[in-house]
Amino acid sequence: MRAASHALRPAGKRLGLVPTMGALHEGHLSLVRAARAQCDAVAVSIFVNPTQFGPNEDLARYPRPFERDREMLEQEGVDLVFAPTVEEVYGTVADKSVRATPATWVTVEDLSGKLDGRSRPGHFRGVTTVVSKLFHIVEPDVAFFGQKDAAQLAVIRRMVCDLNFPVEIVACPIVREADGLAMSSRNAYLDATQRKEALVLHRSLMRVEELARAGERDATKLAAAGRAEFVKEKSVRLDYFEIVDAETLDPVADVSAGALVAVAAYVGTTRLIDNVLLAAT
Amino acid sequence: MRAASHALRPAGKRLGLVPTMGALHEGHLSLVRAARAQCDAVAVSIFVNPTQFGPNEDLARYPRPFERDREMLEQEGVDLVFAPTVEEVYGTVADKSVRATPATWVTVEDLSGKLDGRSRPGHFRGVTTVVSKLFHIVEPDVAFFGQKDAAQLAVIRRMVCDLNFPVEIVACPIVREADGLAMSSRNAYLDATQRKEALVLHRSLMRVEELARAGERDATKLAAAGRAEFVKEKSVRLDYFEIVDAETLDPVADVSAGALVAVAAYVGTTRLIDNVLLAAT
Repeated sequence: MRAASHALRPAGKRLGLVPTMGALHEGHLSLVRAARAQCDAVAVSIFVNPTQFGPNEDLARYPRPFERDREMLEQEGVDLVFAPTVEEVYGTVADKSVRATPATWVTVEDLSGKLDGRSRPGHFRGVTTVVSKLFHIVEPDVAFFGQKDAAQLAVIRRMVCDLNFPVEIVACPIVREADGLAMSSRNAYLDATQRKEALVLHRSLMRVEELARAGERDATKLAAAGRAEFVKEKSVRLDYFEIVDAETLDPVADVSAGALVAVAAYVGTTRLIDNVLLAAT
Repeated sequence: MRAASHALRPAGKRLGLVPTMGALHEGHLSLVRAARAQCDAVAVSIFVNPTQFGPNEDLARYPRPFERDREMLEQEGVDLVFAPTVEEVYGTVADKSVRATPATWVTVEDLSGKLDGRSRPGHFRGVTTVVSKLFHIVEPDVAFFGQKDAAQLAVIRRMVCDLNFPVEIVACPIVREADGLAMSSRNAYLDATQRKEALVLHRSLMRVEELARAGERDATKLAAAGRAEFVKEKSVRLDYFEIVDAETLDPVADVSAGALVAVAAYVGTTRLIDNVLLAAT
C-alpha cells in the first residue's frame, strides 16, 4: 500500500484519503467526490475496525458488501482501494506473534469521554489508533471525514493538531435522504416502521435550528425543545441530546458564538447519530 | 521545520533524524555519524521534553548548553538542527489556548511499565508522544537511537511497528569513557568520588558477561552475580538489575537465546542506566 501511495504522488502531487468502514452510501461518495476535486489522486480505505466497537455492539453484523463497494468506487474513478484484513492491521508484532488487540494506543484524553465517547467507552481510542495507522500506511496529504460523525471529527482534528500529523483534515457536510434522515450504513438495520420513527432525530435538530434562527440563544432552552420531540416518539430511546462547542465538545450556555447540536438515539437496537451546526450570530 | 525537511529530501533522498535532549557527548555524535553514513541528509533535534520527566526528577537542572551543542553539530556537518521551545511543541491547540500538557498521548501499554517505566511512571508515555510528534514534524526516513536507553529503544520499536510509522529505526552501540562508564549527559552531575563509584554499573555488567561467556545460562544466577557487585559498593543504590528479552522486556530464565542485561542505579541523587546484550549461543 505504501509503495502504491508513493507511486500515486510524485513530487508536488496531492493524495487524498477517504477512510471508511465500507457499506458505502451517498455520504461516503460525497467525500470521494470532494477528494477528487481537491487532490491529484484518491485512495479509499475500507476497514471495519474492531477496536472501535464495544463488546456488545454490532461488529459481527456490520454490513460488509465489499464487491458492491469496490464497484461504486471504481465508478467514482478512485485510484486505489485499501481493504486490509484485521490480521494485516493489528495482527503481527515484528513478524513474530499474533495478538487480538494492539499494545500501542493513541488517545485524545479530554475529548474521548464526551458525547459518543461517553456512551461508547473505548470507541474513540479505537478510532484514533486506527486512523493513525491508516495515515502512516497511506501517507495522504489530505483526509476527508463526514460532518455526521461530529465528535469523531473533533477528536481527529485534535489528534492531528496535538501530534503534528502532516495531514490536512477536510470535513464534508451531512448527506440526507429525501425525508431528512442522515445517511448511515446502519440505516440498513431499520425495518419500515423504525425507518419512519428514526426521522425524530432530524426533526429534533430542525426544531432547534428553527428556534435559534428565530432568536433563541439559551442552549438549555434549545436543548429542552429538541429533547421534547423524543417525548412524542416513545419507541425511540434518546442517548444524548447536547449543545456543545464543536471543537472542545464542552457544553455551551449560549449559542451566539455558534454551536454543535448533537443527538444520538436508539431506534430498536440500532444506534443512530445526527447533528447540526448553528452559525455564529 | 517541515518545509526545511522537505527541501532536504527530494525524491529518493534519505533523511536521517537523531532525536536528542542536547548536552551532547560522544554517544550522540556516534548517532550523528551513523546517520551521515547511511543518509543523504541529517537532522538533529534538541528538546528537553518535559512530559518524560516525573515531578521529582531533574527537568529544571538538566543541562542545556545550546551554543556548545550547535557548534558540535556544525562541526559534524549536520544539515539541520531543530530546537523548538516547549510552547512550540506542546503549547497551542488550534492556535487558541496554551496548555501545560498535551491532550493526546501515544502509549505502548505492555512495555511502558517495565524497567525504567516501572521506576519512572509516565516516562515512556512522554517519550513515545514526543517521538511521534518529532516524526510527524521532521518526517525522517530513518531515526537513530542509542542502545544505552535499551528499554526506550524497545518501546519505540514497538510503537513504530504497532502504528505503522513509515520510519526505520536504527540502534547504535553504547559509547563508553576509557574506564567503562557509559556516556550520559547526567554524568555531569557526578563529583569526583561519585564518578568512581558509578563504575559499579559497568563492572556488574562485565561480571555477568564474563560468566555467560564461561557457559552460565541461568538468568537468576547471572543476575545475582551482577547484583552482588552492588553489595560491595554501598554508596550506590540499585534501582533494578534485570535480565530480559530485548524486544518484550519480559524476564528470561535462560540466556541461550540471547538477552538484555539492564541496570539502573542512583549514585547520590543521579540516576544512571547501562546495559549489555548477551549474544545467543
